[in-house]
Amino acid sequence: MNGATHALETAVAAGVDVCFANPGTTEMDLVGALDTVSGMRSVLCLFEGVLTGAADGYARIAGKPALTLTHLGPGFANGIANLHNARRACSPVVNLIGDHAGWHLPADAPLASDIESLASPVSRLVRRSATPEALGIDVRDAIAAALGPPSGVTTVIIPQDAAWNATSASPPALARTTPSVDGAAVDRSAARLRADGAQCALLVGGNLTRRALDAAAAVRQATGCRVLSETFAPKVELGRAAHVVDTIPYFPEQAAADLAPLKFVSLAGSRTPVGFFGYRDMTRSELLPEGCETETLCGPGESAELPLEALAEALDASPVALESREPALFPPEGPLDVMTLGAVLAAGIPENAILVNEAATSGFGLMLHAAAAAPFEMLNLTGGAIGQGLPNAVGASIAAPDRPVIAFQADGSAMYTQQALWTMAREQLNVTVVLCANHAYRILQVELGRSGIAEPGRNAMSLTDLSNPRIDWRALATAMGVPSVRVSTTTELQKALGATREPGPYLIEATVG
Amino acid sequence: MNGATHALETAVAAGVDVCFANPGTTEMDLVGALDTVSGMRSVLCLFEGVLTGAADGYARIAGKPALTLTHLGPGFANGIANLHNARRACSPVVNLIGDHAGWHLPADAPLASDIESLASPVSRLVRRSATPEALGIDVRDAIAAALGPPSGVTTVIIPQDAAWNATSASPPALARTTPSVDGAAVDRSAARLRADGAQCALLVGGNLTRRALDAAAAVRQATGCRVLSETFAPKVELGRAAHVVDTIPYFPEQAAADLAPLKFVSLAGSRTPVGFFGYRDMTRSELLPEGCETETLCGPGESAELPLEALAEALDASPVALESREPALFPPEGPLDVMTLGAVLAAGIPENAILVNEAATSGFGLMLHAAAAAPFEMLNLTGGAIGQGLPNAVGASIAAPDRPVIAFQADGSAMYTQQALWTMAREQLNVTVVLCANHAYRILQVELGRSGIAEPGRNAMSLTDLSNPRIDWRALATAMGVPSVRVSTTTELQKALGATREPGPYLIEATVG
Repeated sequence: MNGATHALETAVAAGVDVCFANPGTTEMDLVGALDTVSGMRSVLCLFEGVLTGAADGYARIAGKPALTLTHLGPGFANGIANLHNARRACSPVVNLIGDHAGWHLPADAPLASDIESLASPVSRLVRRSATPEALGIDVRDAIAAALGPPSGVTTVIIPQDAAWNATSASPPALARTTPSVDGAAVDRSAARLRADGAQCALLVGGNLTRRALDAAAAVRQATGCRVLSETFAPKVELGRAAHVVDTIPYFPEQAAADLAPLKFVSLAGSRTPVGFFGYRDMTRSELLPEGCETETLCGPGESAELPLEALAEALDASPVALESREPALFPPEGPLDVMTLGAVLAAGIPENAILVNEAATSGFGLMLHAAAAAPFEMLNLTGGAIGQGLPNAVGASIAAPDRPVIAFQADGSAMYTQQALWTMAREQLNVTVVLCANHAYRILQVELGRSGIAEPGRNAMSLTDLSNPRIDWRALATAMGVPSVRVSTTTELQKALGATREPGPYLIEATVG
Repeated sequence: MNGATHALETAVAAGVDVCFANPGTTEMDLVGALDTVSGMRSVLCLFEGVLTGAADGYARIAGKPALTLTHLGPGFANGIANLHNARRACSPVVNLIGDHAGWHLPADAPLASDIESLASPVSRLVRRSATPEALGIDVRDAIAAALGPPSGVTTVIIPQDAAWNATSASPPALARTTPSVDGAAVDRSAARLRADGAQCALLVGGNLTRRALDAAAAVRQATGCRVLSETFAPKVELGRAAHVVDTIPYFPEQAAADLAPLKFVSLAGSRTPVGFFGYRDMTRSELLPEGCETETLCGPGESAELPLEALAEALDASPVALESREPALFPPEGPLDVMTLGAVLAAGIPENAILVNEAATSGFGLMLHAAAAAPFEMLNLTGGAIGQGLPNAVGASIAAPDRPVIAFQADGSAMYTQQALWTMAREQLNVTVVLCANHAYRILQVELGRSGIAEPGRNAMSLTDLSNPRIDWRALATAMGVPSVRVSTTTELQKALGATREPGPYLIEATVG
């Protein structure tokens, strides 16, 4: 057995059985091992940003890591942006990066670079394995550290000789960390919420599961506090079966105004909220008012379910029945804009769907109607690095092949990683891409105004405009083997969403006015 | 005036007047400055890997840097792979990276990351500008360091407050370093070559200009030494007006065999050659035989023209007439394979063209016929990070709008950065893309065999196969506004290359058997 086989056997023994890959020469032994080790599924992506985003989407749905396999520093670097998003989502992801053999590294061959420097900004743990035996240990440790808690992204750099040299080692066993609840923090939070509920909030982050939301709603009813969610929580349960919570507004001045009355915030799976960007007329990053106190029940990358249930119990809070909601209705016939698009989508989303939301400015309408939709889970763009959506949808669908996946996608962001369409076609994933084509970086046109550039000049307008030439998304889907349709009215979109189709991906290019 | 305006005025004053950009919110002041500072052309690319590769291609043709403008760590990270190629090419490139305002950085907002750690592996100089005045100095220093010699990639990180705060500073002046010749090294090389010519070589790297090749040919004739070029020199003059030199073979065992007789090598603009990859049956990176001595006339990123002319003069070497060559002829009608494709291209390449070569395994045939082609310059994939070709072609065409540019491009590599097609259409660049569609990572199928995986299993085959589904390159070109044709025979390709067309880009999908 060589080190490559040992590494993959270690992963399989630890329950990790999917590898999103774009290998090169330095990974040939690992590629070979994919055929000798049983139980590992490999998925080819034609660009590394696709495969890291797929591993993130997979992790958010499967609750465990996939492997990524990339080619030295430059191949890995192509995946960094979506690993940045995975890091902000605290998604468990384990990167395997091939490198030159140890004896060849000092030669500084053309593909050599400082992989540690590239990997560190997105990784909780970076290891370089000198031998096949160390490689097994490092893969095991990387999986353990990725699972946490707190969960996150980890990286193992595999010199080629560690992969091709022989070993007789057995896969080292994985020890899991058991999550624990900080009882003292729960008690302090309970006391504050009981005393001062109306001026308090619970801020829930991470995976906003139905269980976590149920507990939060019970605390809200028992104390009168608000329940807030992070602006871009990695995963949120939405629709008629989930309690509704208030999402912190995106723009900092709106968030600060909304949060101004608060005296105390209990943090469950989230950090103290800060502005997404700074602006010229601001000097403060924090969104909570000065003097507002916080208590951390659990941090990012830790499940908020147990701490929130402990908090509800400490408050003797009873379960809260869901308020009854009318189902979302299809809006009347008319052109698609941000509002009507969201309304049609809310009415048409299938039960138990996964909706990957990278619709940017085109996504506002959906959120107004989401509570009335059929139960679904939404994955958000966590780190602001655009190009997350289509890759996330690939990974989510591989994690849950029987659930419908909707990639609700802005056009500007989609261009970053549209190679994901090819993997959707190759793997025949049940992903419906709703591609919102406004042919602009619309958010930047908003931000130009916010920067005081009231009348943008020719260059400023040009750098935010995607209409020359217009991207033909149907042709792009055709190029990568994905059937498609173009819609520009509510009825056309409704029909496209509802049509019975062959299994596999489908792209709906929605012209948004 | 704000810092952003000051930065761009400094660049324009230093002769830098093109900015390849994909900005976001943190770069809004720089975007605004593009309209207030005259003389700076901005070019929008829909993915950062396109814009860094464009800056590299621009630098290789223009001989001076362009700016790149990217959005914090993740936006920049998308451009790292092509900056790795630019670094290996010693191309002058100046990266401007927007970051959060200084006061907002400690908040670790969602898009924050360790930009220095990401930028260092590809940058000769990394600066972070705290004030508008420092920003001017840093941009000036970054341009100076990019120009060298030695030339290379440099990076300035611009916190938003350094861009939006006011300044009355004037653009700081640029001081250029004058290249000098190491006379002692020239004399020692001359002595060795004179004494032992037949067992010696000149190894020329960097930009293999006609002037450098003329001087090298004179040295060759005077001493009987070989003239070698790097396997992947950034820019090479080829065709009937250039002296022919021997390119070091790609596979290390072939290179080592070829170089085995050498006792002395004089290095002009190149490093001591090493294997591109290590292999299991090797333990040595160097391609020169043990005991072979070297003398450096000038290193990578330094022009070899003056040192080679000094060497020729020291040897009293006379200019050498070009050997007469028959023009390349179109091969007879037949299907396209690696050999016939190269022959047709060599016969059809227009005079003074720039050919960007990322054809990988499909490129071998062209090199057999290149010496008989019309004079042209070839840009090579220098750092092995695929996805360089189409972006390089964008930049080369912006640097030389009147010269025909041919992007000779493998399909697997093209998928990495095909968003470049959109910029070609938007800017109406005279680029002809010859897209070699073999629907495989063919080089990896070769490498599987070299790794001892004689009969690859299902996964290994699948990870090197792009035929399921086949990418429809014509549809992809249509999606981004580029007209196209599909060819599968020599005559069809000849006709497509020779057709009179409207200005602007054109894609020829060549089905290669």
